[in-house]
Amino acid sequence: MKIYEKSPAPSAQRVSLFLKEKGIDVERIDVDIRGGENLKPEFKALSPNGRIPVLVLEDGTSICESMAICRYFEASHPDEKHLFGNTPTEQAQVEMWNRICEFQGLYTAFQAFRNLTGIYKDRETCIEAWGVESKNRIKQFLPQLDERLASTTYVAGERFSVADITAYITCQFIKNLEIDASTYSHIERWLDLVSARPAFQ
Amino acid sequence: MKIYEKSPAPSAQRVSLFLKEKGIDVERIDVDIRGGENLKPEFKALSPNGRIPVLVLEDGTSICESMAICRYFEASHPDEKHLFGNTPTEQAQVEMWNRICEFQGLYTAFQAFRNLTGIYKDRETCIEAWGVESKNRIKQFLPQLDERLASTTYVAGERFSVADITAYITCQFIKNLEIDASTYSHIERWLDLVSARPAFQ
Repeated sequence: MKIYEKSPAPSAQRVSLFLKEKGIDVERIDVDIRGGENLKPEFKALSPNGRIPVLVLEDGTSICESMAICRYFEASHPDEKHLFGNTPTEQAQVEMWNRICEFQGLYTAFQAFRNLTGIYKDRETCIEAWGVESKNRIKQFLPQLDERLASTTYVAGERFSVADITAYITCQFIKNLEIDASTYSHIERWLDLVSARPAFQ
Repeated sequence: MKIYEKSPAPSAQRVSLFLKEKGIDVERIDVDIRGGENLKPEFKALSPNGRIPVLVLEDGTSICESMAICRYFEASHPDEKHLFGNTPTEQAQVEMWNRICEFQGLYTAFQAFRNLTGIYKDRETCIEAWGVESKNRIKQFLPQLDERLASTTYVAGERFSVADITAYITCQFIKNLEIDASTYSHIERWLDLVSARPAFQ
């Protein structure tokens, strides 16, 4: 079993934090994304959408998409942490908050960063005005996250979950957009809490 | 238990098809989104991100995000259909393909539609050039989906899953962008197959 990734990339970090939380060690192979290694046929044969990270199982099955990789390990290595929630209500709350943090947070931040910097302009059309708008939307999202964290210990409730990993990665990534999430007091309290976890060292 | 929704909206339809597949009947209440009913404090108290659909449980817990609502019913009403997959590998493949169809399909189509039509310009900044680019990305995604469906019966493999619901809703929604997915022969074969299911009548 191997994971092909670009280790500093936010999506690789999501998988990495998840595996550290679960105490699972998997061989990693770095892929040169800037150099376009992921656009070559050998890599495309591994990853159905040509993106990293990709988990390749012993039987040759490839799994891309960070959350799909995390779900594979959650289903194959169930434990008492229940990072995707335990009861039906908790599972739904984790899925809800993970998605809110993805769509309004992480993916909006990706669109802001890619369109503003043109980092992949050799392979995609960038629209600077959409970068500006996406950055504004991130700024509108942070007070919502702060309000949520005013009433709960963790993002999805009273238990640490994959939604905290997504929100944490978002708060780290938006530093590239010169946005500091820790200026919000409840987010700051929560960032201190999750940053102290052994997996986050 | 109640679901607040706008019944013709793609996200409400995803939940609706999922519940029909599982044979679960839930009371529905229509919310006037165009009229801004979802922006009022009463609705915002129900939905953490002010969006529909929202499931409100008997104990008052609110769950928004379509996939979180579907996961609630999957966990509370498990059955032999395993719409989110059964084994760890299958669960991961369903999550992977559902996400590929969401990010490259449905959400890209939403961004194209909202930015091109300005349907919600009273509440969001629209960037027409991003609408054009998003529409181009949908057109680039369809051959990928077609290639996938050349080798598998359903989107995530040999079993019908929630990924088929997402892909089907995408194919329906992009008609609003004057894109006809059925011009791709493998997509056409699969659309005929899923459209014939009782839940899709």
